[in-house]
Amino acid sequence: MEQVLYIIAITAEAMTAALSAGRRKMDWVGVCIIACVTALGGGTIRNILLGHYPMSWIAHPEYILITIGGALLAGVIASVMKKLKSVFLFLDALGLVVFTIIGCQLAEQLHMPSLIVVLSGVITGCGGGVLRDILCNDIPLLFRKEIYATASLLTGVLYIGIERLGMTTETAAIVAAITGLIVRLFAIRYKWQMPQFVYEEEWD
Amino acid sequence: MEQVLYIIAITAEAMTAALSAGRRKMDWVGVCIIACVTALGGGTIRNILLGHYPMSWIAHPEYILITIGGALLAGVIASVMKKLKSVFLFLDALGLVVFTIIGCQLAEQLHMPSLIVVLSGVITGCGGGVLRDILCNDIPLLFRKEIYATASLLTGVLYIGIERLGMTTETAAIVAAITGLIVRLFAIRYKWQMPQFVYEEEWD
Amino acid sequence: MEQVLYIIAITAEAMTAALSAGRRKMDWVGVCIIACVTALGGGTIRNILLGHYPMSWIAHPEYILITIGGALLAGVIASVMKKLKSVFLFLDALGLVVFTIIGCQLAEQLHMPSLIVVLSGVITGCGGGVLRDILCNDIPLLFRKEIYATASLLTGVLYIGIERLGMTTETAAIVAAITGLIVRLFAIRYKWQMPQFVYEEEWD
Repeated sequence: MEQVLYIIAITAEAMTAALSAGRRKMDWVGVCIIACVTALGGGTIRNILLGHYPMSWIAHPEYILITIGGALLAGVIASVMKKLKSVFLFLDALGLVVFTIIGCQLAEQLHMPSLIVVLSGVITGCGGGVLRDILCNDIPLLFRKEIYATASLLTGVLYIGIERLGMTTETAAIVAAITGLIVRLFAIRYKWQMPQFVYEEEWD
Repeated sequence: MEQVLYIIAITAEAMTAALSAGRRKMDWVGVCIIACVTALGGGTIRNILLGHYPMSWIAHPEYILITIGGALLAGVIASVMKKLKSVFLFLDALGLVVFTIIGCQLAEQLHMPSLIVVLSGVITGCGGGVLRDILCNDIPLLFRKEIYATASLLTGVLYIGIERLGMTTETAAIVAAITGLIVRLFAIRYKWQMPQFVYEEEWD
Repeated sequence: MEQVLYIIAITAEAMTAALSAGRRKMDWVGVCIIACVTALGGGTIRNILLGHYPMSWIAHPEYILITIGGALLAGVIASVMKKLKSVFLFLDALGLVVFTIIGCQLAEQLHMPSLIVVLSGVITGCGGGVLRDILCNDIPLLFRKEIYATASLLTGVLYIGIERLGMTTETAAIVAAITGLIVRLFAIRYKWQMPQFVYEEEWD
């Protein structure tokens, strides 16, 4: 089940990332690189930080083929994707919470303290999007977008909180993921945003 | 003592980083992420490059809480910080040399050659600021700012040079740090800059 | 032989990277950092992803001195380099294929699957240029430039394909490198480009 969700999630991430790359007029090799980095980058950053080897896409090179396939497919059906925009926003939100739970669970297996477990989830959920925005020369969108990193953070905190209450890992994962997903979807629908910190002075 | 200086340094880095994020109109989660990356990123890059695990903030998750606390505090007292600007420039300069010495000492413990010891110091001192500028979509300031990377480099070179002269590690650290700090503070005060290499031609 | 080619390649990469930094009006420390990151960054990213330690420039700190020397030399002879532009474009293309082959061979020694071997070559060949463009706050050029990442990809695919046909590693390396080099040089000469994926809609 988690495996199936993961593959849906990386495919959706790869497809929307390909559209980002397309807006930057990249060539097809660039589009595929951006898609791979976006879909697999969060878990890769997490593994580097935790010192956990090998990377998932080295153990399972088929994940790379799936993301490349997703990117090429997005190029072909870009006009259809626009009409299915709400489907893709849903899949992207699903990917966010699935990646977050996977990141939390990996850190737990490595016996990390709770704060690192949550952080591992957030890095897994959001890291790919940050890398995509850096490569596309944008300010990472998720630092400003509707409840994005926050939904990931909420998912991670709920997951570990529910576990601490004595529930099973499965229960904690399902409740946390569904709650995070609902919050993210509501945030998109009603344009919820976290309060911004706006500071106008020059400093440096 | 070094521990105390380190905590002062990461707090100061987190607070000034929060103001950078605030100028980019990030939300509060983004501000906290930028603060953590800036304060802890230099040591993290160094550890990844040296293959030294675990990261300091995984062994000591309280460092993450300190930087988040610093970022939130900066939001509350931003207007006061402006009046205390010279205090923060001093703490930032202190952080630069403290981080540099810590980076040099870690590489020494790993029996790295002298050039890598110095480089480890510079990466620790400057890496966080580079990551902050990448995430805020700036050209890293330190490649252009008054004697910033250069003060870190000087600190590292002095540290290892004084040790090679037969002095104790403590003496070398104190002399190198104070000299680096003075150079950096003079550079801020008198707007010293390294000569720039300016090349106007198109190449690519 | 490979060692000689490698040193020529990192020197050429460092020299052209210094000109990029010069166009951004960086100071000399910044120029040297950009040169090192460009020349040594691809192999460093690859090693981090494969979990292969130590970094080549830690085992051989003289590589760092070579790239710094190249960067300083570029500053001195920048006006001459302009006249020798075709020589540097050749050396840069040579570097691309040499780095690619080195990256493939390292992944083979680590018994990686074929797809990862090719990817390891592309990351080694292109990673330094991507880091340079991120630090200079550009969209990585290679995602748009004439058959750049593509020439690296072609070199890697040919290398592993020829080996699979039963040829020796040396034959595979030479044939793949020469073919990749010719394709890249023709691409520069005739301004070949990969088809771009252009997508105009706003999405996020």
